[in-house]
Amino acid sequence: MDLKIELKKRADFFNTQLEKFMKGGSPEKLYDAMRHLPEAGGKRLRPVLAMIACEAVNGDIIKVIPLAIACELAHNFTLVHDDIMDKSKMRRGLPSVHMKYGEPTAIIAGDLLFTKAFESMHKTSADPKIFKNVEYGLIDCVREISEGQQLDMEFEQKKIVSEDEYLEMIRKKTAVFFQYVSEAGAILGGATHEQSNALNQYGLNLGLGFQIWDDYLDISSDLKTLGKDIGNDIRNGKKTLIACRCLNNVKGEDKETLSKIFGNLKATDEQVKKAYDIFKKTGSIEYAKNRAEEFCKEAKKSLDILPDTDAKKILTNLVEYATFKRIK
Amino acid sequence: MDLKIELKKRADFFNTQLEKFMKGGSPEKLYDAMRHLPEAGGKRLRPVLAMIACEAVNGDIIKVIPLAIACELAHNFTLVHDDIMDKSKMRRGLPSVHMKYGEPTAIIAGDLLFTKAFESMHKTSADPKIFKNVEYGLIDCVREISEGQQLDMEFEQKKIVSEDEYLEMIRKKTAVFFQYVSEAGAILGGATHEQSNALNQYGLNLGLGFQIWDDYLDISSDLKTLGKDIGNDIRNGKKTLIACRCLNNVKGEDKETLSKIFGNLKATDEQVKKAYDIFKKTGSIEYAKNRAEEFCKEAKKSLDILPDTDAKKILTNLVEYATFKRIK
Repeated sequence: MDLKIELKKRADFFNTQLEKFMKGGSPEKLYDAMRHLPEAGGKRLRPVLAMIACEAVNGDIIKVIPLAIACELAHNFTLVHDDIMDKSKMRRGLPSVHMKYGEPTAIIAGDLLFTKAFESMHKTSADPKIFKNVEYGLIDCVREISEGQQLDMEFEQKKIVSEDEYLEMIRKKTAVFFQYVSEAGAILGGATHEQSNALNQYGLNLGLGFQIWDDYLDISSDLKTLGKDIGNDIRNGKKTLIACRCLNNVKGEDKETLSKIFGNLKATDEQVKKAYDIFKKTGSIEYAKNRAEEFCKEAKKSLDILPDTDAKKILTNLVEYATFKRIK
Repeated sequence: MDLKIELKKRADFFNTQLEKFMKGGSPEKLYDAMRHLPEAGGKRLRPVLAMIACEAVNGDIIKVIPLAIACELAHNFTLVHDDIMDKSKMRRGLPSVHMKYGEPTAIIAGDLLFTKAFESMHKTSADPKIFKNVEYGLIDCVREISEGQQLDMEFEQKKIVSEDEYLEMIRKKTAVFFQYVSEAGAILGGATHEQSNALNQYGLNLGLGFQIWDDYLDISSDLKTLGKDIGNDIRNGKKTLIACRCLNNVKGEDKETLSKIFGNLKATDEQVKKAYDIFKKTGSIEYAKNRAEEFCKEAKKSLDILPDTDAKKILTNLVEYATFKRIK
């Protein structure tokens, strides 16, 4: 089985369905702005995960398409508003929505994406009672993402963030969405309670592993990159698991050195390198890598109770693909 | 019957329920930002309308509270984002959310209000099938409000807007919400199809009358005010029904004069007065007043088929209260 081909097959099918759903709408400028990011592509990890979770319980993926579209649109809604908040100029290789259409239209376009997510959800063929449960999950998920986004912003201003606080933030900001799509995809595929719980845990652990691995990749890339991205993260005092671990455990002279560099916008390249060395020396980089691996192991373990299917194999391999084999 | 007392009684009951629903939440700053506008008060016209529509079909208002809260929060969500887009500094006598909490938190607070609206909707005791229909109505309504908001922004850049385009804009931006709360309140109260249709039409016409009357009030206030608000509206080229009517019908010298003043940010007070005189001379102000009255008449007429109840009387009187007897 070629994982990439399996994922692409599903992403292509999903894209056809998404395109159909997103056609038309007036005023044109607003609808163009709304379509800008979803049409720019992306890995479609969330909808594809919903589809495979459905397949893993022998469900018919057509039943999961309204949910898959809803999740991709809700994800894009958060990105459009995030980009405004972060003043990000680019996304997926294109100008961000507010750069292309102006901030007022981008705010409404984000709101409209959220509305369209619910509109898609309503197209489900599921029994209204099941629909109500599954939809409530999405609402809860978006609430937690909002909370996670706020925490992430607040962490920038905090001197020390505990590991638990960090994990709670990424759980909300990233992992709950993976958790939700896996579980909801399974429910709509007709999963037993045990199966949907297993996929819930799979998604949660995958999401946590995915986000920590992201931090790890950022800092373990080569020294050329170190001068840019990592330099910025260190200068901005970005609270990654690596930074949290280190700041909570570093002692003596290193502690003093780090406190002068971490979060200091004027830190020199040499100082940044020194902070990196302290991260490494204290074992914080290795620690984050190990935590990511633990979460990935947990994710795979939770699949044990599922019947042996191609979908199960895909889910197992997806853990590696989304983390250790990922190239940013 | 004292209409104001009747409305206040319901608004007070609603406020107690709303407060209960909005308690707690973390991170605190985000939840404080989310509560800022709903807690600042307001007329609560939408939730109260939902409650009275329910009563008008002999329904139990307790059944309509989750909907009433959802509608007030969805309305506040649009206001929080509108204020960011318009860079408005004040709302309901307090600093707007983005002025108090910063733009990033205000964007998320708006998103969270929208999420909480759906959360409230899910608390309904209605049968899941009815819930699904009623919730879909809210989604559709928010979609139209987004479209209306975009149209309103685009009209600022257009030289001429037809009366029909204007009416379509205010239908989306204002009237659909009144239409929705009236109909949905009735449905949750156990209305017959005929009754919920009647309340749908009541809300639509009330909303249209309400918005046109708003334009009329702005321009027919005394000359002292004319120098400020109306001056701004004329200088900004704001497309009210009065302006649309006039621009589409004015001829000869007046047309030329108006084209130099309307939308001219540098227009003098004397020129503003001249534009006002042209609005008046062409009968455009009177025309808008008549249109508002027509919509109000329609609103009242649609109540005919309802049983005679106190609620029906309130709905009838509310038309006057929301329009002709309103003091801005």
